[in-house]
Amino acid sequence: MKVIILAGGGGSRLFPLSRTRFPKQFLKLNEERSLLARTILRFLPIVKSCDMVIVTNQEYIHHVRTELIAAKAQDAHILLEPVARNTAPAVALAARYCLDVLGCKADEILYVTPSDHVIRPQDIFNENLHQAIRLAKMSKIVTLGVKPGSPETGYGYIQAGKAFGDAFTVQSFSEKPDQETAELYLAAGNYYWNSGMFAFTIDCFMGELEKYQLDVYTLAAKGLEEMKTNFSKMPSISLDYAVAEKSEELVMLPITAEWNDIGSWDAIYDVLPKDEDGNALQGDCIPIDCSNTLMLGHSRLIAGLSLEDILVVETDDVIVVAKKGESQKVKTLVGELKGRGRIEADEHTTVYHPWGFYTVLGFGKGYKLMRLVVNPGEVLSLQMHYHRSEHWIVIDGTAKVTIGTVEQLVHENESIFVPQTVMHRLENPGKFPLQIIEVQNGNYLGEDDIVRFSDN
Amino acid sequence: MKVIILAGGGGSRLFPLSRTRFPKQFLKLNEERSLLARTILRFLPIVKSCDMVIVTNQEYIHHVRTELIAAKAQDAHILLEPVARNTAPAVALAARYCLDVLGCKADEILYVTPSDHVIRPQDIFNENLHQAIRLAKMSKIVTLGVKPGSPETGYGYIQAGKAFGDAFTVQSFSEKPDQETAELYLAAGNYYWNSGMFAFTIDCFMGELEKYQLDVYTLAAKGLEEMKTNFSKMPSISLDYAVAEKSEELVMLPITAEWNDIGSWDAIYDVLPKDEDGNALQGDCIPIDCSNTLMLGHSRLIAGLSLEDILVVETDDVIVVAKKGESQKVKTLVGELKGRGRIEADEHTTVYHPWGFYTVLGFGKGYKLMRLVVNPGEVLSLQMHYHRSEHWIVIDGTAKVTIGTVEQLVHENESIFVPQTVMHRLENPGKFPLQIIEVQNGNYLGEDDIVRFSDN
Repeated sequence: MKVIILAGGGGSRLFPLSRTRFPKQFLKLNEERSLLARTILRFLPIVKSCDMVIVTNQEYIHHVRTELIAAKAQDAHILLEPVARNTAPAVALAARYCLDVLGCKADEILYVTPSDHVIRPQDIFNENLHQAIRLAKMSKIVTLGVKPGSPETGYGYIQAGKAFGDAFTVQSFSEKPDQETAELYLAAGNYYWNSGMFAFTIDCFMGELEKYQLDVYTLAAKGLEEMKTNFSKMPSISLDYAVAEKSEELVMLPITAEWNDIGSWDAIYDVLPKDEDGNALQGDCIPIDCSNTLMLGHSRLIAGLSLEDILVVETDDVIVVAKKGESQKVKTLVGELKGRGRIEADEHTTVYHPWGFYTVLGFGKGYKLMRLVVNPGEVLSLQMHYHRSEHWIVIDGTAKVTIGTVEQLVHENESIFVPQTVMHRLENPGKFPLQIIEVQNGNYLGEDDIVRFSDN
Repeated sequence: MKVIILAGGGGSRLFPLSRTRFPKQFLKLNEERSLLARTILRFLPIVKSCDMVIVTNQEYIHHVRTELIAAKAQDAHILLEPVARNTAPAVALAARYCLDVLGCKADEILYVTPSDHVIRPQDIFNENLHQAIRLAKMSKIVTLGVKPGSPETGYGYIQAGKAFGDAFTVQSFSEKPDQETAELYLAAGNYYWNSGMFAFTIDCFMGELEKYQLDVYTLAAKGLEEMKTNFSKMPSISLDYAVAEKSEELVMLPITAEWNDIGSWDAIYDVLPKDEDGNALQGDCIPIDCSNTLMLGHSRLIAGLSLEDILVVETDDVIVVAKKGESQKVKTLVGELKGRGRIEADEHTTVYHPWGFYTVLGFGKGYKLMRLVVNPGEVLSLQMHYHRSEHWIVIDGTAKVTIGTVEQLVHENESIFVPQTVMHRLENPGKFPLQIIEVQNGNYLGEDDIVRFSDN
């Protein structure tokens, strides 16, 4: 079996913690590891990491690499979507990759899963996995459903038909319902939340694609390279629409493990531990006469006075305060920010690069302060700035710095000056991360004042 | 006439904007000048600044100096209370100062005012001042009251008796009432808010002191130096208790100008301009479906989603979110913070010194970043640190730096290194503020790692 982990999605429902360039699957929330890393670990009892294919895109590749290291799954495969085309083309690409690169046979089982959900406990989920595998072996398209505990309006629903082993045939799919409909579904008892997880053999999947989504199939049939080259020609269509809703081989397996897609701050409030007043607190928070609040502190003290059903989320650059139950309006907010061309919609104050990351610590008239962390062995591009000079102070590690034609080593607690318009390069020759404080001086300090003389 | 401005008070009702070491009278709120500066300007139509005495204490003296410059009132007198003893001893000290230092005669009128209220419009207040002066000349103790517009529970009340010119005799004083009582007062129509302002001649005041607060009088009678030396022996008592509530010469003059003591975030919400949904917004705020909220942004984006009657106040280090109408609980919060020994209760991230100020911009393992602004001609103490070295980068101006025995000038965009345990001194020899970024490195970066070899 191969596990296909879909980690290319954007989404802004957890803004300001998630941003366009740092989506939900990379968030740790209150755990040690990110949702993606936890997703990878979820399948290690069943398959080796070399049997996992992480489907993502160029923009997130260094985040994915970081999470593979965190999950000790470095030999998992990373497959890049040339462009975003929703789940059907992405899974077809992954299937093709399994055939052409991993040398899978047509009867290989693929287990497809999102990378940003919480599922527990592990042992029960393991049973669900084995049930799914058994059904997939019977050439079924297995979609996994979740028995609803409440009339959620944020999920799609699957209506179960008659029993088929551990699973059910499927009578219908439905989109996110309104409150009333959701309550009818809950009462009916045979409606399940759509978890977005699937299991099937490659040939079964390809067969159904051929029947119901010929354009995707035709391209997929031509092999991996052809597929990548023409990926942009694919329709943008979900696996549900393209295959599941049409296939006569479809069965829905209810997962008995607890499942949460934590798709909103309200959902996060639900999963977090709470104090006796129902307050879910993280970071440096002082609630006074507060009840049923969520306070997620990051770098500063958050104090609440007589708050009820209020959510407060703080990051270095944004504070969101929302009425509980209304946190889906974060989408409206992000839309508003994008409309205004605000960088907060896309980026944190910490920006990740293949070589490491930088954090903007502060700025004012004529100066800007950054903290740079350069990973061992990494090299920043050879560059030059027209409008600013830079002072670098090494806090941790040793830097190899080239200024003009002179190359030198700068040690911990030493500093070096990079004059305006002089070509320079920063490099970490060491075995541990290099930490530098950069003080920029100049009348213009935009990130776009950079002339690169090399790619890396 | 001399104007006695009481600017020694602490108070934390506007935390996190006000702190123990930066109280309300020094806040600008949404105006160009601080409340103290606005108080000074309020009296310039009537007296010259050299006829003003600002009563404060050692801790606030550099703030007061700054505000005198802002109000172009540098020749106002600054009188320091040796210790805090409430308003009666403070005003007695000021009266003594007027007699001994300013050479006032006994019939000089003193107008006593708090420094942290808002009163407008000016022209109407001018009339009120002239009314007060006329009454004071008749050897009355004039206390100024405010016709209540609502049943406030946050103020003391004065019950008016029969008319006396523009004023009234006083039937009774009462403490902050409960809601029910406040409504009775409002309905009665002859109750006024106690504004804390007084007018009287020195001999009239001294005479009443002798009658009703002999201990304060006796010391005051001995002259300024004697008074300062023994100030700590004074009882801590207000002018209301000591004199006003007992004096048979008391009259209450209603001020017809609009008065607000802006003693809480709710009161600030009341005075600020609002949008069509009743939101009072300052700084970088985005309200989405919000009504009747106060959002005071400082350095970061504040977004509100479906909030109603919520107050959000942000500073560099603290975010307070409160239910409207409950903002007096800020006092409970500050008490809690003091109990936990949290520095936030007392200090901002920006800390003022006689030489200028510094702001902590950020810190992490092994480093701390500060922005220092040194006023022209100022010199920091000769000092040394056991556990940290410092890099100084000059952003603006020219620094005179002494390291060990070597003195040198460091210019804009140059940096200099101060090694651990080496004696050093920083100085601004120039005519404009000197701005420096300081990067501290070391395993211990507490402010108390400092050995001073000079006082300044």
